[in-house]
Amino acid sequence: MSEKSIILLHASELLTGAGIRAKDGRHPKEEDLGRIPNGALVYSTKTVSYTDFTTGKSGKKVVGDKILWVGESEALPSEYSGSPVFDLYGRNAIMPGLIDCHTHLVFAGNRASEFAARCGGASYADIAASGGGIQTTVNATRNATEEELFRLARARVEDAHRYGIRTIEAKSGYGLSLETELKILRVVKRLQEATPELEIIPTFLGAHDFPKGADREAYLIEILDEQLPAVAREGLANVCDVFIDEGYYTVEEAERILTRAKQLGMKTKVHADELVNTESAAFAADIGALSADHLLKISPAGIAALAASETTAVLLPGTAFYLKTAHAPARALIDAGARVAISTDLNPGTSMTSNLPAVLTISALYLGLTRAELFAAVTYNAARALDVHSRKGTLEAGMDADFFVTPYATFEELYYRFAW
Amino acid sequence: MSEKSIILLHASELLTGAGIRAKDGRHPKEEDLGRIPNGALVYSTKTVSYTDFTTGKSGKKVVGDKILWVGESEALPSEYSGSPVFDLYGRNAIMPGLIDCHTHLVFAGNRASEFAARCGGASYADIAASGGGIQTTVNATRNATEEELFRLARARVEDAHRYGIRTIEAKSGYGLSLETELKILRVVKRLQEATPELEIIPTFLGAHDFPKGADREAYLIEILDEQLPAVAREGLANVCDVFIDEGYYTVEEAERILTRAKQLGMKTKVHADELVNTESAAFAADIGALSADHLLKISPAGIAALAASETTAVLLPGTAFYLKTAHAPARALIDAGARVAISTDLNPGTSMTSNLPAVLTISALYLGLTRAELFAAVTYNAARALDVHSRKGTLEAGMDADFFVTPYATFEELYYRFAW
Repeated sequence: MSEKSIILLHASELLTGAGIRAKDGRHPKEEDLGRIPNGALVYSTKTVSYTDFTTGKSGKKVVGDKILWVGESEALPSEYSGSPVFDLYGRNAIMPGLIDCHTHLVFAGNRASEFAARCGGASYADIAASGGGIQTTVNATRNATEEELFRLARARVEDAHRYGIRTIEAKSGYGLSLETELKILRVVKRLQEATPELEIIPTFLGAHDFPKGADREAYLIEILDEQLPAVAREGLANVCDVFIDEGYYTVEEAERILTRAKQLGMKTKVHADELVNTESAAFAADIGALSADHLLKISPAGIAALAASETTAVLLPGTAFYLKTAHAPARALIDAGARVAISTDLNPGTSMTSNLPAVLTISALYLGLTRAELFAAVTYNAARALDVHSRKGTLEAGMDADFFVTPYATFEELYYRFAW
Repeated sequence: MSEKSIILLHASELLTGAGIRAKDGRHPKEEDLGRIPNGALVYSTKTVSYTDFTTGKSGKKVVGDKILWVGESEALPSEYSGSPVFDLYGRNAIMPGLIDCHTHLVFAGNRASEFAARCGGASYADIAASGGGIQTTVNATRNATEEELFRLARARVEDAHRYGIRTIEAKSGYGLSLETELKILRVVKRLQEATPELEIIPTFLGAHDFPKGADREAYLIEILDEQLPAVAREGLANVCDVFIDEGYYTVEEAERILTRAKQLGMKTKVHADELVNTESAAFAADIGALSADHLLKISPAGIAALAASETTAVLLPGTAFYLKTAHAPARALIDAGARVAISTDLNPGTSMTSNLPAVLTISALYLGLTRAELFAAVTYNAARALDVHSRKGTLEAGMDADFFVTPYATFEELYYRFAW
């Protein structure tokens, strides 16, 4: 399994985040960052196979396996002193690989023209007349082949990797039929087969919207009796998400879907309190969801419910930026004791970006978060939102060797420099 | 001079901006974009020398010279039919090279730690105690060698080129002494010698602030009698800028400096109405400045003055984003008939980015500008702000061959996709 060890030496700073894990991501403070000036990281590697779906090309890649040791360079145990060295000469900070825990990675088409029209003052009627909104993306995604979807999504995965993302969630939800939802999740599987240098975690979101013109109850039954069992049977996702909001799913409908998902052994997530308050954050906490996401309209009761639960609050400030709405109450959530993660919400309608560091800039400025809070939000807490925190999110011996050698000397430069 | 011609064929769209020039950049409308589906561009090239200041390496590069012909691919004149072809296969839009007309390109150090502290809620007293603000950058820049400044600024120029910028302004102003202001402008000259693929336009901004502890009148006299004459004598810049604001220069002081600059044959610019209203936009219009920049606090009288003048209004929405202040009244300026440009304001304190397309995203969303207004703001109108509009800013025969083959199929995708 482990063929060789590599040592990274003389990072200008190494940030382990060990203190964040110790506090399970709540109330992250500066001292929890585990800053080690002139730090070193030792990890093992493994050789894995990959296959490119579009070209059929396959081969082997050497990727990180497990972290063996982390500490000050000067304290390196002698057993590693003969290992191959990759010396950063003090130029770069090393931190846990970023985790983008809420994305709609797989879709076809783009909504640039709708975006430009909306920004330029076109009315909703104008936009609807020229065919805007989520149904545009559903139509384009339904019409796309798996090859097309794969090619488009892979470019986004490559962007994500460039921004330091080593784990990315990918929701279905632009199919809204058995066949097309499965198509999207199969593309996610093939993306993983093609890119072993990232972990891609699929989430089933058949309940992203209702298909245009569909009978509401009939589509619900399709999710319960066809889509969910097929996803579970094919092993295409083990997390189920529902978009609860005015005009989308009710809490009661979500409960039916997520109860069925749990019966099938799946974990749960909720798009909660985004457009209006439906007390869906409290519902998410109540059913033990991994995360409640968006939370622009969360109530004080919802904040208290999340703080008292194991459900992570996933904030998506890029979406608020695109929608020009007030941001989620990040400060209140953290101060109440909720575990807060931040993600891009990459999607073609309301957050067309893979640039998680740019979303951190928005978060620093407009959510008023500290360095430790931002760090936790894209590492351990995001791992928690995906239930992979037992092996990801901090740089500690035994964890996956998922790290990010940043282009800069400190972590804060990642978000001080805007849109790099 | 012109060794060969190259044809670009089958761009998904070619945007000439010819109509924007025809209206001198005021009231830009959709039809002024000069969209040509399946367009072609023919241009001549020239071979120029370059010298890298840090390595001493020199050589020759082939760069674009002049645009010879623009139109539909199918209408290509027969004289060009034998020219070498670079075929984009309909994948990319071609537009005039972006022009970033207001940057503080040359400085040392960074203020990431100050930024992180400010965002995380540290008080101004805390930040001042740890040494924040413009003086931090002045100290770092004074202490840096020309080689260090060159190396740091060249990385920023390379970023700018990646974002489609083909002309970039570079202000001095982090020296605040004869010697260090000249040092910065010499670095700008060396950047130009090293990178002939971009045009770098220097601006003298000795009046960016007063040196710490300096006698106000004594420093003014130094600018008038030493800095300005030396800059003119060495030919290091032919534009002079002044930061008029509360705590910085008064309108009266700016008038003394800019009058002297004009006597020396220089053109003028003004940092106007940023922190408080000083009616400096109207002053800029009155003295015939090329541009009045910032304008966050411009008055209705200032708007009217700019609209009635030849002075371009340069807006810097990245700075308002960083400062979390209200944006400049872009809509009112354009509607009144002012010529509006948009720039990054790249600087280490209040806009640490070279990503002009990301600033366009902010502008689209938060200034409410149309596609044509945004296009004009980073092409012809920015050329106007630098007085290079006789040869830059549109794709027309006779203009400089400064174009941007965008990574996308349409112009609007440049800013719909955030922080690419």
